[in-house]
Amino acid sequence: MPKRTVTVLGLGAMGSAIAQRLRDTGHDTTVWNRTAAKTRPHAEAGSRAAPTVAAAVAASDIVFVVLLDHASVREHLEPVAADLKDRTVVNLTTTTPNQARDTAAWAAEQGLTYLDGAIMAVPSMIGEPHSRLLYSGDAGAYETARTVLETLGTAEFEGADAGLASLKDMALLSAMDLMFAGYVQAIAMMRTVGATAVDTAEEVHAWLAAMLPHGRGLAEIIDGGTYDTGGQSVDFDRIGLASLIAASREQGVRADLLEPHKKLLDELAATGHGADDWLRVIERLTIH
Amino acid sequence: MPKRTVTVLGLGAMGSAIAQRLRDTGHDTTVWNRTAAKTRPHAEAGSRAAPTVAAAVAASDIVFVVLLDHASVREHLEPVAADLKDRTVVNLTTTTPNQARDTAAWAAEQGLTYLDGAIMAVPSMIGEPHSRLLYSGDAGAYETARTVLETLGTAEFEGADAGLASLKDMALLSAMDLMFAGYVQAIAMMRTVGATAVDTAEEVHAWLAAMLPHGRGLAEIIDGGTYDTGGQSVDFDRIGLASLIAASREQGVRADLLEPHKKLLDELAATGHGADDWLRVIERLTIH
Repeated sequence: MPKRTVTVLGLGAMGSAIAQRLRDTGHDTTVWNRTAAKTRPHAEAGSRAAPTVAAAVAASDIVFVVLLDHASVREHLEPVAADLKDRTVVNLTTTTPNQARDTAAWAAEQGLTYLDGAIMAVPSMIGEPHSRLLYSGDAGAYETARTVLETLGTAEFEGADAGLASLKDMALLSAMDLMFAGYVQAIAMMRTVGATAVDTAEEVHAWLAAMLPHGRGLAEIIDGGTYDTGGQSVDFDRIGLASLIAASREQGVRADLLEPHKKLLDELAATGHGADDWLRVIERLTIH
Repeated sequence: MPKRTVTVLGLGAMGSAIAQRLRDTGHDTTVWNRTAAKTRPHAEAGSRAAPTVAAAVAASDIVFVVLLDHASVREHLEPVAADLKDRTVVNLTTTTPNQARDTAAWAAEQGLTYLDGAIMAVPSMIGEPHSRLLYSGDAGAYETARTVLETLGTAEFEGADAGLASLKDMALLSAMDLMFAGYVQAIAMMRTVGATAVDTAEEVHAWLAAMLPHGRGLAEIIDGGTYDTGGQSVDFDRIGLASLIAASREQGVRADLLEPHKKLLDELAATGHGADDWLRVIERLTIH
């Protein structure tokens, strides 16, 4: 199969890594950046530097969009909508699910082929097998672009709803954010008795690695949808969280990160669910 | 070495598991419980059921205290202070670090030998090698009781400050709580597009397992104490968290669990630290 021609709009850290990887895997690569100076190292390495977005778009079959945010995506794509006909637009800019859906709807109105993507990797990981990219939107576009997409990392198609790639990305990043918040909370508490952050992090690592597999059991309870499990109750967990919060404050550490979970459980207790499994907390999170 | 005589005060799920394990490992075991009926299965299995706390305490060298909370510990131990002379008191009741210190100070006033403990296991794990128990307080008492303590699981002495076992327990439980909150947050977000909780939990498990080792790098930055790392900045992280919060709300999921981290970063930005590494957040947690 002949190598596809590719364009990369936006040469921030991620856009540059993508352009470099596409070039290194033998693709005819055109780049554009708002600040033209950033195209120079790419041009020197063999890419074509386009002077305008329209020229960049005209040069290739597949147009990767790796801009700052949703607003800049629309600002740069709307004027070249006509030029994007017969191209495959792959938007890797970080946006919320609804922003992705919004751009997909605009692309559909314009008769464009649109794929939204989310990158679960840092720029230095691009092209490595543990770099993971999620895609959603036009299934045909995914199949057409697939061999090119797979040069960036593991590629997964999430479905026709263009917001799905972003949503899964944001869900997993939320879990990661809370896990790292947990590291910081534990380190802050243990620092008060002179423990180094690294010593505490090693303890946290070992403990969380041992606890991580229990997430599946929690999920099974949630999927079961009944909360009379006889397991850890809302009231039991409220006492436990009150102890964690008290212990943190006793040591002179704010418990802000721990409080919302306690408040959600208090809401459950106040609505008569104190004896239910604590995982009923997911119902408080979901806005009905 | 002859087996030590041991008493267990409190036969809730954890106290029962401990009494059973001590008996199963050949220790002469006496039990007491406020509701006497709970002593029956233990008596039938070969333990001595004591009618009073004083009788229970008189029967053994080592007295394990596994009661409901700090208040019940003091309520039951204070009247038998004289009987506890020449005994080793091992308090495994869940308390905050300051409650442990308070009981240790009371024990010292009474001339008692006191060890505080924290159990990082559920009752069914007692006696298994991956059951981990932390101890702090009287180092001599730890050494004296060590062979008995090691029948319950891996034993670790944290130091002479009686609050240390509880503190490490609470720090690690805080990290675990936030990690499981992350599972619930991700599951809630993905449920809105029909993903089962188990499918999301498997994704979260794989992702967090891959991210877990990065905790050490975060800790190294904190130990370094300078936040001009050129890494992920407060302002970068604020944008990221704003996206996570927006994505959650767009899908009809409350973002309460994600908000405190964002607020702490906002405080840093408001005090001129927007360009610093986001890990400066630990300074906002610590009350000066």
